[in-house]
Amino acid sequence: MTELRKDPIIDNWVVISTGRSRRPFDYKIKAEEKGKDNCIFCKGNESETPPEIFAFREKGTTENKPGWKVRVVPNKYPALKMEDKGTILEEAGMFKKMSGSGVHEVIIETPHHQKDFDKLSVDDIVLILKTYQQRYLDLSKDKRIKYILIFKNFGINGGASLEHPHSQLIGTPIIPQRIKEELKGAEDYFDLNRRCIFCDYIKQEIESKNRLIKEIEKYVVISPFAARFPFETWILPKYHYAFYEKTNDDDIFCLAEVIKDIISRIKKKLNNPPYNFLIHTAPSIEFSSREEWTDMNKKYHWHIEIIPRLTKIAGFEWGTGFYINTTSPEEATRILSSI
Amino acid sequence: MTELRKDPIIDNWVVISTGRSRRPFDYKIKAEEKGKDNCIFCKGNESETPPEIFAFREKGTTENKPGWKVRVVPNKYPALKMEDKGTILEEAGMFKKMSGSGVHEVIIETPHHQKDFDKLSVDDIVLILKTYQQRYLDLSKDKRIKYILIFKNFGINGGASLEHPHSQLIGTPIIPQRIKEELKGAEDYFDLNRRCIFCDYIKQEIESKNRLIKEIEKYVVISPFAARFPFETWILPKYHYAFYEKTNDDDIFCLAEVIKDIISRIKKKLNNPPYNFLIHTAPSIEFSSREEWTDMNKKYHWHIEIIPRLTKIAGFEWGTGFYINTTSPEEATRILSSI
Repeated sequence: MTELRKDPIIDNWVVISTGRSRRPFDYKIKAEEKGKDNCIFCKGNESETPPEIFAFREKGTTENKPGWKVRVVPNKYPALKMEDKGTILEEAGMFKKMSGSGVHEVIIETPHHQKDFDKLSVDDIVLILKTYQQRYLDLSKDKRIKYILIFKNFGINGGASLEHPHSQLIGTPIIPQRIKEELKGAEDYFDLNRRCIFCDYIKQEIESKNRLIKEIEKYVVISPFAARFPFETWILPKYHYAFYEKTNDDDIFCLAEVIKDIISRIKKKLNNPPYNFLIHTAPSIEFSSREEWTDMNKKYHWHIEIIPRLTKIAGFEWGTGFYINTTSPEEATRILSSI
Repeated sequence: MTELRKDPIIDNWVVISTGRSRRPFDYKIKAEEKGKDNCIFCKGNESETPPEIFAFREKGTTENKPGWKVRVVPNKYPALKMEDKGTILEEAGMFKKMSGSGVHEVIIETPHHQKDFDKLSVDDIVLILKTYQQRYLDLSKDKRIKYILIFKNFGINGGASLEHPHSQLIGTPIIPQRIKEELKGAEDYFDLNRRCIFCDYIKQEIESKNRLIKEIEKYVVISPFAARFPFETWILPKYHYAFYEKTNDDDIFCLAEVIKDIISRIKKKLNNPPYNFLIHTAPSIEFSSREEWTDMNKKYHWHIEIIPRLTKIAGFEWGTGFYINTTSPEEATRILSSI
């Protein structure tokens, strides 16, 4: 099968080309893991990281000592950091640059070196998800930050430099391109139809069932119609809401169950692949009025994108910005929804 | 150093964050190479590929037999192929798809398994560059194809599945996103300033010298101001011209010299990294009039993008569409321009 599919939300096309996965391959690759020796994120090595910003801890334990369940620290090698002077735009001829005001934090998900989402309990995952919320809410008060992305890179080909399960938070002084495109797609659709594009998307997927991996009361898990990567998987709340960070405790508990289940399926069916996990939520801007908040909440719909890293991104993708996906979303759905 | 830079041509920002390259790394990676045994692209194995579409051959030699210098064959596992019925758009609710009409060819650059651009002679490279031109010119007659991208993936982390040096050509039934953005950036700039954005870009880089790796009579080699990747390198013709495929023989000869030099420097300074090599030329549309052709030629400026693959692309990049580059373009220039 070879076809081009348009992403229903953003203006981009992908190629679904299933014959290519059978092509010959010259290389053998081996990534050796290091194990938990000298891991700076393990219990007992708290002094190896910058002091903690936030933690869920057992009662009676002390900051920057063992006893934590989830721990947030500044990234020692930040992509962006806060500048006292704020964001300053400089121009030189046709070139524009800004000082890199922003934040970069690490969320150490568990004291256990080997426990990813599949091995943690639902209650443990709830604490991680609540930590994400807490950091969003805290940082969104800072007017210098225009967007907060929480994401996780798992495994070396997922882009992780350290093995110990951790997520990252990057707050940026501009709204990044892909989020801007998503917001624009959602806004244009709303202006035309007076409905949320994600709600319509979910409704169509529940009706067709072709790309529906899982449906429970509060969430659906789907293979997106124009998946850029094999086995790309989205978790979407069935209830309409723009802000992940303000999702209530009940919904967070159900989300933890869904994440544990989906990551377990991906690990089992795809042989424990590296992956990326990303939360897309509405921009963390200060709303000047209740109306402005309501307007954003009407148009956007938070969701999670999970991307197992099974293929290499190569010249064609960089050169064109569109992706060749060798597994159809319908086939990915069949595999991930079977037991 | 941490700063955000806006791409002067397309509407996107990158983070230049040089401290991050010192962060610790848990994994050891090893990619084993296979060598030339059973290589389907080596001399003598011509029957292993689909029949050749084009070749530069020694006089008196026969198609699909040894004696070729550069050889073009259809990709056996194509991302896109021609459909007799042409491109048909189908819609289902909010989903749009097209049959995948297009082409996917492989340009086997040399009969020698180990000879990349650095080891080939300038004359050998000229033949490869002319082969690219010939395939562009031939395929651009097909009205079903709206864009032709020629690119090369070198090494496994460059996305190559086979070791033997080869380039690929993909012809697509739509103009891909990144090219569309570049065309739009160039067009908007021209409409405002009545000048080519790339010509102004080159002029500014020649004056400042901060990101100028090499300058000869006909070409400049630069680290782009908003490089997405460490050591991203562009080759641009100093003469204004939109169409790579119609560049004359003299200019192609000089280009071959520049490519050999730059790829040699990249291999020497960066320890033979995997890389991607991409030609950006104007869309291969049939022009309905001389005016239309002149208009395209005024606004666009062909160039080559070379991307050494030194870092992993991870969650932040997929999630936001903007890139964290750990080597400043000015530092990359210092390293690549020194002898």
